[in-house]
Amino acid sequence: MADSTGGKVPLLNPILAKESEDHLYHFGITRSGMDLPKLFGDIKFVCCGGSATRLAQYAQQFSKEIGIEDAKNLSKSDRYVMYKTGPVLWINHGMGVPSLSIMMIETIKLLHYANASDVTFIRLGTSGGVGVQPGTVIVSNGAVNGEIEQSHIQYIMGKKVLRPAVLDKPLGEKLYALAKQLNLPVETGKTFCADDFYEGQARVDGAFCEYTVEDKFNFLRRLYENGVRNIEMESTCFAAMTRRAGIRAAIVCVTLVNRMEGDQVDVEKSLYHEFEGRPFKLITAFIKQQMGIEMNGDKR
Amino acid sequence: MADSTGGKVPLLNPILAKESEDHLYHFGITRSGMDLPKLFGDIKFVCCGGSATRLAQYAQQFSKEIGIEDAKNLSKSDRYVMYKTGPVLWINHGMGVPSLSIMMIETIKLLHYANASDVTFIRLGTSGGVGVQPGTVIVSNGAVNGEIEQSHIQYIMGKKVLRPAVLDKPLGEKLYALAKQLNLPVETGKTFCADDFYEGQARVDGAFCEYTVEDKFNFLRRLYENGVRNIEMESTCFAAMTRRAGIRAAIVCVTLVNRMEGDQVDVEKSLYHEFEGRPFKLITAFIKQQMGIEMNGDKR
Repeated sequence: MADSTGGKVPLLNPILAKESEDHLYHFGITRSGMDLPKLFGDIKFVCCGGSATRLAQYAQQFSKEIGIEDAKNLSKSDRYVMYKTGPVLWINHGMGVPSLSIMMIETIKLLHYANASDVTFIRLGTSGGVGVQPGTVIVSNGAVNGEIEQSHIQYIMGKKVLRPAVLDKPLGEKLYALAKQLNLPVETGKTFCADDFYEGQARVDGAFCEYTVEDKFNFLRRLYENGVRNIEMESTCFAAMTRRAGIRAAIVCVTLVNRMEGDQVDVEKSLYHEFEGRPFKLITAFIKQQMGIEMNGDKR
Repeated sequence: MADSTGGKVPLLNPILAKESEDHLYHFGITRSGMDLPKLFGDIKFVCCGGSATRLAQYAQQFSKEIGIEDAKNLSKSDRYVMYKTGPVLWINHGMGVPSLSIMMIETIKLLHYANASDVTFIRLGTSGGVGVQPGTVIVSNGAVNGEIEQSHIQYIMGKKVLRPAVLDKPLGEKLYALAKQLNLPVETGKTFCADDFYEGQARVDGAFCEYTVEDKFNFLRRLYENGVRNIEMESTCFAAMTRRAGIRAAIVCVTLVNRMEGDQVDVEKSLYHEFEGRPFKLITAFIKQQMGIEMNGDKR
């Protein structure tokens, strides 16, 4: 882990550090093609989530809330969208660890080249709940992999490498307290990171199923007993990669289903939108606090 | 493996088989919400690839080539796009195995509910080449994982499960012969499936790097000696899941860089588009042959 929390976003690659040019392929951004320090040097928050549409909406809504012009998509590739609203960057990461990992690597490089410092990464997502009611906001206190171990699995040079999937404790505590203050239903717990939506999450509604409903509930109970409160598909990599770079990070996901009661997500549409908006509500309240903006939008 | 190649697309889930309703969440399609056999019962080919924009373009171009109306996006979710052009379905799968796996599961369920039969799945992608010149089309003869083993790794109920990542040999041979006939630069070889774009592919241009340039070349040579000719991020799951369902499948990717010579993709734009079009050229020639349409677009 880099000893740089709060400092400049590091580049932990001595080979690349010697190069003067870099192409951030999946954003379509070339280092020499624009003044990165001028454009991104003031970034203090990177907010990410799976869906491109949702992240675009978040950025537009936040622009309105802080009274600035509508943000434009800065990504020149169709792989991800990227919006900047003052010190906040909004980027989608697609579904699953591999897709997230590409976005994270290229964002870390971008912020390093931009000389950004004291940056916080937050993942705002949707998830399946484990023993909690749909609509509950889960502030993660760690992420566990498919073997229920708190680490991110990588394969490098043909070998399995494990990296601790740890999140920033003080940041998580602040977010939990703020959610309480905002009257949002909130819990803290571990997040189970699956590599697929069906068998990897013990669902019985996929195209394949070789276990029983009893096996499923036994597994979900085992997760619950291990402190897991929700299931998604990106948390181990997000936690491990930010920790490795010494970047403060949090994961805030709303649950759309209580997996102890069913597999299918069938929340009524307007309720779904209200649920989906809860992590945004919490995170933007937090960011505005940090920016010194009161909840009513005025600068202090 | 289901013994159903050529037959009806199976549902290998006895629990779901008892249900009459299903919500294909990531396509926004409900089983009872439309006449699936009428809409999708005639599908014979599923063509997929990472980028939503590219797949949309493929569908529009194929509509023109076979002389039908422009296809519309049938997906009601922003997670994937889905276009239908006669017996061909075009769907994007995003980047990496987890994102692909969701698309595959929901497509298999969709085609099962539609009573589709004798369906072939083809992945058309871009990739990094191993010891082959940029622009080479690789017809995969198998997929290997991060430990250079020919299997897809899943975690189910907390345990690691391996599934053989095998592709249809006669289909691969037909595609190879057709590529030769079309004068496309083509090779067959194994495809290395990585879970990330940087360290997992032994690149030295990521945000983190703890190995040397020599380690990188040793690893790439080891891949080459194991029969690997290209690197991407979806092949093991694609091969294993189609095999498990008894669905004929092929992977055809063009290489954009020879990793033995560099890491960054910096092909000149018009050449990039020509390269990117090669898998499409091959696959649509094959599909038109199968549909009984001559290369000039007339029905036989």
